[in-house]
Amino acid sequence: MNLTVIKIGGNIIDDKARLSSFLKDFSAVKGFKILVHGGGKIATEIGKKSGIEPNYINGRRITDEQTLNLVTMVYGGLINKNMVAELQSYGTNAIGLTGADGDILPAVKRPVKDIDYGFVGDIKSDTINGELITKFLHSGLTPVFAPITHDRKGCLLNTNADTIAQEIAQEMSRYMPVELIYCFEKKGVLLDASDDSSIINNITSKDFIKLKEKGIISGGMIPKLENAFAAIEKGVKNVIIGHAEELPALISGNSGTCIK
Amino acid sequence: MNLTVIKIGGNIIDDKARLSSFLKDFSAVKGFKILVHGGGKIATEIGKKSGIEPNYINGRRITDEQTLNLVTMVYGGLINKNMVAELQSYGTNAIGLTGADGDILPAVKRPVKDIDYGFVGDIKSDTINGELITKFLHSGLTPVFAPITHDRKGCLLNTNADTIAQEIAQEMSRYMPVELIYCFEKKGVLLDASDDSSIINNITSKDFIKLKEKGIISGGMIPKLENAFAAIEKGVKNVIIGHAEELPALISGNSGTCIK
Repeated sequence: MNLTVIKIGGNIIDDKARLSSFLKDFSAVKGFKILVHGGGKIATEIGKKSGIEPNYINGRRITDEQTLNLVTMVYGGLINKNMVAELQSYGTNAIGLTGADGDILPAVKRPVKDIDYGFVGDIKSDTINGELITKFLHSGLTPVFAPITHDRKGCLLNTNADTIAQEIAQEMSRYMPVELIYCFEKKGVLLDASDDSSIINNITSKDFIKLKEKGIISGGMIPKLENAFAAIEKGVKNVIIGHAEELPALISGNSGTCIK
Repeated sequence: MNLTVIKIGGNIIDDKARLSSFLKDFSAVKGFKILVHGGGKIATEIGKKSGIEPNYINGRRITDEQTLNLVTMVYGGLINKNMVAELQSYGTNAIGLTGADGDILPAVKRPVKDIDYGFVGDIKSDTINGELITKFLHSGLTPVFAPITHDRKGCLLNTNADTIAQEIAQEMSRYMPVELIYCFEKKGVLLDASDDSSIINNITSKDFIKLKEKGIISGGMIPKLENAFAAIEKGVKNVIIGHAEELPALISGNSGTCIK
């Protein structure tokens, strides 16, 4: 059976109605599936209420101990478990996980070079427990990952959800055909950032280099696409980037940007 | 293989050094094992910081929506995931769960009679997913349960950890021999509440009735023992009540009160 790894993040998590609609669409996805979610603004809001202000050094957000606890509560608890409960109500037997659970995503605390990012984890690709994920899928479970890993020494680590989705998709390609879908706030990679209908339907690595040179692809889209091409190179069948509200169309190939 | 279901709660969760010592002892327990944890004062403290005050009606604590979110964050996220990460560092392949994960503990929102307890769940014994727990155990996983269940309609529910431990132990008795250990702040059931060494080593249901009549057993110990006897009646091999700091001695039968 095919596996679809879907990443959602950002604003949709903060919007109950849109999140519900997305989770219904996710429940309807056929075959094996895995959801990876990011954070949203809820963490920042809850942090502010309890006196935990975001900590920036040179414009980079730092995960200090307080922030790690906040992330563990909000991503690993509040967001993750509510998604699981809601998916259960739609008939999807979800199981909420961090990378510490079942030792699925071992990571190393990012080494300090110019910046000390704090409790941020970089996944060790060769240690991902794809066998356990496979067992879960064959038991009828749908894993839902919060963007948290661990260092095997007792410490949780904040980890980018895009990267978690990519690493899981790559690892699972060893066991079954995998499709990776990044859901975000745009309908795909755009030729003209100001025109939401200017979607690039297909993009190869050659196209990507050209579009980068011309400055058409820039900013946050660059690491997203780099992740996507890396995944393809490591065995993921295809990667689709598109709007969270169009999940059925993304899956049927009728929307979004397909990375090949 | 035998299964040991161990419940910890209360003060030990708030004390990092004592909790670490307990988790090391727990890791050393042989055979299949399951940990069920309660809350501790952390939730109340974090609640206060973020302006969520405990809500009491007629002296009973009510789980309103804010409190449910707090409990989901602190029990389901912060406490649960940190325990999992620490257990991983001791070589125990822990997996943190609520009753919503894998639909393991379906519950019903407690019906309103005199008091509306809010988002509090009573477990439906006949729907516990013991088969999935068994699969996890046979996969080398050690489940760690936060005291949260769900109603299968998308709603998480706050549930007493003692009851979760009892219900899981009962259900698992259908699959393997089960021992249930309640760890708390006393060395066992005491004949004289003011004398910590006056431990009753063994207690039968007949003894219990007599000791209740004489007023020797009273207060919070009554429901704890009622749970214990109910578990025995439903197939649990034996139940031990004792001090969290004496887990190895409780398991070897050299400390605590044994309910038969």
